[in-house]
Amino acid sequence: MKESNIQLISTITEDNKLTLALQSIEMPKPSADEVVIRIEAAPLNPSDLGVMFSAADMSTATQTGTEQNPVITADVAAKFMPGLKTRVGKATPVGNEGAGTVVAAGSSPAAQALMGKTVAVIGGGTYRQYHCANVQSCLVLKEGTTAKEGASSFVNPLTALAMVETMRAEGHKAIIHAAAASNLGQMLNRICIADGIDLINIVRKPEQETLLRDMGAKYVVNSTSETFLADLTAAIIETGATIAFDPIGGGQLTSDILNCMEVAVARDMKEHSVYGSDIFKQVYIYGALNRGPITLNRNFGFAWAVNGFLLFNALGKLGAETVMAMRKRVADEITSTFASHYTHEVSLTEVLQISSIEAYSKQATGEKYLITPQK
Amino acid sequence: MKESNIQLISTITEDNKLTLALQSIEMPKPSADEVVIRIEAAPLNPSDLGVMFSAADMSTATQTGTEQNPVITADVAAKFMPGLKTRVGKATPVGNEGAGTVVAAGSSPAAQALMGKTVAVIGGGTYRQYHCANVQSCLVLKEGTTAKEGASSFVNPLTALAMVETMRAEGHKAIIHAAAASNLGQMLNRICIADGIDLINIVRKPEQETLLRDMGAKYVVNSTSETFLADLTAAIIETGATIAFDPIGGGQLTSDILNCMEVAVARDMKEHSVYGSDIFKQVYIYGALNRGPITLNRNFGFAWAVNGFLLFNALGKLGAETVMAMRKRVADEITSTFASHYTHEVSLTEVLQISSIEAYSKQATGEKYLITPQK
Repeated sequence: MKESNIQLISTITEDNKLTLALQSIEMPKPSADEVVIRIEAAPLNPSDLGVMFSAADMSTATQTGTEQNPVITADVAAKFMPGLKTRVGKATPVGNEGAGTVVAAGSSPAAQALMGKTVAVIGGGTYRQYHCANVQSCLVLKEGTTAKEGASSFVNPLTALAMVETMRAEGHKAIIHAAAASNLGQMLNRICIADGIDLINIVRKPEQETLLRDMGAKYVVNSTSETFLADLTAAIIETGATIAFDPIGGGQLTSDILNCMEVAVARDMKEHSVYGSDIFKQVYIYGALNRGPITLNRNFGFAWAVNGFLLFNALGKLGAETVMAMRKRVADEITSTFASHYTHEVSLTEVLQISSIEAYSKQATGEKYLITPQK
Repeated sequence: MKESNIQLISTITEDNKLTLALQSIEMPKPSADEVVIRIEAAPLNPSDLGVMFSAADMSTATQTGTEQNPVITADVAAKFMPGLKTRVGKATPVGNEGAGTVVAAGSSPAAQALMGKTVAVIGGGTYRQYHCANVQSCLVLKEGTTAKEGASSFVNPLTALAMVETMRAEGHKAIIHAAAASNLGQMLNRICIADGIDLINIVRKPEQETLLRDMGAKYVVNSTSETFLADLTAAIIETGATIAFDPIGGGQLTSDILNCMEVAVARDMKEHSVYGSDIFKQVYIYGALNRGPITLNRNFGFAWAVNGFLLFNALGKLGAETVMAMRKRVADEITSTFASHYTHEVSLTEVLQISSIEAYSKQATGEKYLITPQK
């Protein structure tokens, strides 16, 4: 086994700076229930950017260091520092998931069984060459699945499945999804088609409409269209969707969705009520693509909720049995339903080029980066 | 039995007008499970104003008719008319609760048992002289309790109790209440003191602080104080409150409450997380004292929810057994824990004076109107 091990770390320092750098660390030694994975591919998800950049203003980023060891520095506004005090001075590893080959295993039968296997892994710090993880955090990929194909086996697939399972558990019958042309949105579209669930896709651009319709989506509405509210309401009337998932948050979209749901369900009310319809309307906000304020223009009665939605909390609510079934489905369908599409492959060194950061920090829909730490 | 029966009705007409008037109706005849109650007292709650005024702009109200039969007319903005189409042309009775004497009863033993009793009643249309109701909607008041004392036995008492029961059912241990100097707030304060529950009262005025402190409130914070956020955070740290009830809605208070909760619970986090604390934070919005947009400045992670809160929906969630216990407690403690305080008593004719409307439509904290339809 190669003895060098490099990882990407993110550090906030007391002088209101963020530093991103590569760090040479020891090769991990697995305990009984652990394995060491040679990470061959790890995606750059929006949630990873949250850990990596923290509260830094990346428009102030500068690159120093050497060609092989670039160092990125950026400013953190003073107002954010009090909220970061448990992070200051700590070299924080980045990367929530990835995939690779098990090159060392602990003494337990469960760990030994993974030796030599290609596995996907969930858990902090996958932007490194060799990663030690508990066997519970690993998903064995099917024979023939590559690490690149399996790199995104957790965050997006389980989030998309958790949306569907949450819909079922909470008694809704169709789903609205915002920013629906994303990798996650495309997965959700495939799941819903396979499972016969009506899905209303909200996108911002005509080409995203086309993309999803070409993938078989029946309901696609464009939030920049003048007829958006009428289109969304019509789709809700057709499908009966009373649950929505929105990664944007800031702005009025959540409010618009609730108001359109209310218009749709109030059509069936025989008696007017000042409290609005008693049909429960739910929006889950699972991201912060717009960090501005969420504005709710309340014209949707009293039977509603807006919740934060975080994968780990959602899995906890769904329970172990459902989660096991979800993981099995991901492994079985990782090259079809749960296939991810990457537009760029970068090494750990290339991740820390200022030009790369400018590109991937935009989180443009359709653009997706894959890190290959062995390159 | 007196044969005249007068009720207050609210009508929206196709010419974008609201009309409030008195109407002579037939004396009701109870079916087997019903009783006829001579309504002696009925409160004017904010929720009644919602039914009464609907979407009308009451600053345009004018009074016509006669001294004994006043008629109030006001404009409804055209934009609200589409949402009111199931209400147009329907003479809508007003009044969600009241109390009085049972003067006629249906043939069933349950109905006959109420004959001559003083009862409180829930259900639309109590702003009338004689009201017919199912026995299930009646609460028999204890011997010696007057109709005026029992007039507000449902809306405020059950809402305050539903807040406490919701706190318990959802695993929280202390409550934050906004606009806490209201009649409802004072009840909640008494319940929490009796039950040993920590309650953080948010008020806007020094005299409201004094009022609640004189009633034994331990935690009172003033939202107009410069130190409001720090005061609220300190109180949350002391009490562990992670659930709030807010009748205001519009503005930033809900956001402020969630942010203060997050600051309080994040103090115990050993590791920084970009997702914030995983301690669940809940705000229920149960009114619309401010009809403007709700603005959420999200700095409170992903473990949160903002819900509408409506008494009937909340009771449905709590279940029949809990609700029966709540009703019994109200009857037992209607002159102590659940005592209401009225500043004005008005007849049905006096309710429809333009000068009265100007006064009670302000919904000023501490001002409360009682209608006495027999006057």
